[in-house]
Amino acid sequence: MAAGYTIAVVGATGAAGQTTLKILEERKFPIRELRCFASERSVGKTVTFAGDAVTVRRVEPEAFTGVDFAFCSAGSAQSRELAPVIVKAGAIVIDKSSAFRMDPAVPLVVPEINPHAAQGHAGILSCPNCTTIVTVMPLKPLHDAARLRRVVATSFQAVSGAGVNGIEELRQQMLAWAHGAPLVPEHFHHQIAFNLIPHIDRFDGSGYTGEELKLVNETRKILEIPDLPISPTTVRVPVFTCHSIAVNAETETKVTAARARELFAGFPGLRLWDEPAENRYPMPVTVEGQDDCFVGRVREDLSHPSGLNFWVVGDQLRKGAATNAVQIAELLTH
Amino acid sequence: MAAGYTIAVVGATGAAGQTTLKILEERKFPIRELRCFASERSVGKTVTFAGDAVTVRRVEPEAFTGVDFAFCSAGSAQSRELAPVIVKAGAIVIDKSSAFRMDPAVPLVVPEINPHAAQGHAGILSCPNCTTIVTVMPLKPLHDAARLRRVVATSFQAVSGAGVNGIEELRQQMLAWAHGAPLVPEHFHHQIAFNLIPHIDRFDGSGYTGEELKLVNETRKILEIPDLPISPTTVRVPVFTCHSIAVNAETETKVTAARARELFAGFPGLRLWDEPAENRYPMPVTVEGQDDCFVGRVREDLSHPSGLNFWVVGDQLRKGAATNAVQIAELLTH
Repeated sequence: MAAGYTIAVVGATGAAGQTTLKILEERKFPIRELRCFASERSVGKTVTFAGDAVTVRRVEPEAFTGVDFAFCSAGSAQSRELAPVIVKAGAIVIDKSSAFRMDPAVPLVVPEINPHAAQGHAGILSCPNCTTIVTVMPLKPLHDAARLRRVVATSFQAVSGAGVNGIEELRQQMLAWAHGAPLVPEHFHHQIAFNLIPHIDRFDGSGYTGEELKLVNETRKILEIPDLPISPTTVRVPVFTCHSIAVNAETETKVTAARARELFAGFPGLRLWDEPAENRYPMPVTVEGQDDCFVGRVREDLSHPSGLNFWVVGDQLRKGAATNAVQIAELLTH
Repeated sequence: MAAGYTIAVVGATGAAGQTTLKILEERKFPIRELRCFASERSVGKTVTFAGDAVTVRRVEPEAFTGVDFAFCSAGSAQSRELAPVIVKAGAIVIDKSSAFRMDPAVPLVVPEINPHAAQGHAGILSCPNCTTIVTVMPLKPLHDAARLRRVVATSFQAVSGAGVNGIEELRQQMLAWAHGAPLVPEHFHHQIAFNLIPHIDRFDGSGYTGEELKLVNETRKILEIPDLPISPTTVRVPVFTCHSIAVNAETETKVTAARARELFAGFPGLRLWDEPAENRYPMPVTVEGQDDCFVGRVREDLSHPSGLNFWVVGDQLRKGAATNAVQIAELLTH
């Protein structure tokens, strides 16, 4: 392609990097040149983009010369080191790690929610945590309509949120179970097959996990409500793809379930599947592979006069990561 | 055994009935004679009790003559029909269905919580819903210490809560997956393998499910707080045994996490597993097969000055059903 941008994908062999390549292709992002990077052990391997094999390159400062957008799906330690180098080479970094999310100088962007924030970037833009993105999508239209006052969120998170290793571990444990072999935890702290692990990321001194605190801090930053009270619980479940969140939200003024359904259905990137009589509500297996987030089980809180309960499911590799990152780049090209 | 009681187990071939037989044996309930009953298609089969084969009998009024305690694990329609007949035959019915739970004349008993209620029975005592029992266990000591004001509960429920069919369906779907065959939902509304179904029992007009409303109404009755505000979400997960509940509880006066841990650890039937630094918290695979409920992830709510978050897991076939039912009988024999 002659016209278009020079794109770098860092971490191209990982779950998020692979999905980024897929989304760039699906959305026909205007690409003139694609450069794929990964860690040392993947250098020389090939990844596929639009039917072509692309050789994975070594991460070196000079390799980013001429790049317009670099999508980084490496770990946060690597992002912290690499992003300034890539910016210095002249590229805009769209980072999916947690490295810069809470940096006041770095916009934390969900394009449907705070596109204006992207404009203030100084080379790096940050993509929120996958659970945060899925949770914040229905919160935004509620907040605009009735001002959020408090959120209690309980997540059910897929193993692919932990990358290719997470997927492989659930797969291996399930195959072992089917063959009567022992289930050995390697990547997760405990067996994940037929189990629930209420522990994602590290614990801090307060008893919360990093994943839970990300949900609190990032939601506040994206919604621009610095003191929004949020009570998070995050749990790993034996599901391959899609994070699901049971949300209880209190607003300043009452939002009826009917009005909430209208608000959700009308918000870009959010779709309403809420027909209990037809047994229709979002579930991981029906949402997997889709870019939108899906909300259902919308009902007025029995315990609070202006509370609302709902259930939101999003493909965390897509809207929770790659789709959101590509949308950020699209914002900057328009 | 010469001394002891004549016991009937109705629904003896189902998941709850089978567990009842196991618990009666484990707890050395004093049994003189055991009569096992099930639906027509199981009549003549045998079940095992204490190493002996017991032939399954037909449910007929005269078969209950001389019975002291009848444990009913049939459906609620059958319980509604059968319980009065059994009472008329002179037995005390301990019913695990939802038939009589909200009947003001029938005690709804969790022996650690409201043993006094059992004394007022008129022949029938009701065992709460499995999710309710597990949820209410940690709520009781909190309420006694600081008065509950509001509860937001999100459940992660095992397939065995839906009986033997639920277990078999998850097993069959997982085996089908391991062999590359299609996954066919029969018992549940949708595929349960690698999925989450936010729908247990029927929907009512308000958008809540029967399971969710049971959690509200039964919790209020057991705790004797008729207007306690409770916000429920119940979800079926691909786990064989144990229901897990993420609970956010507000109390009238603040309970610190340290104090809550003491309260939980000191409450009979409840055990504290809360050592984040050791990656120790309750999970379905570690709680399965145990009679106590286990609580962990105890932490002060970031969003409310007197809120508390915790995670409670219980084997819903044991404490959530059979163990609780046998404990009710024990109350009446002491």
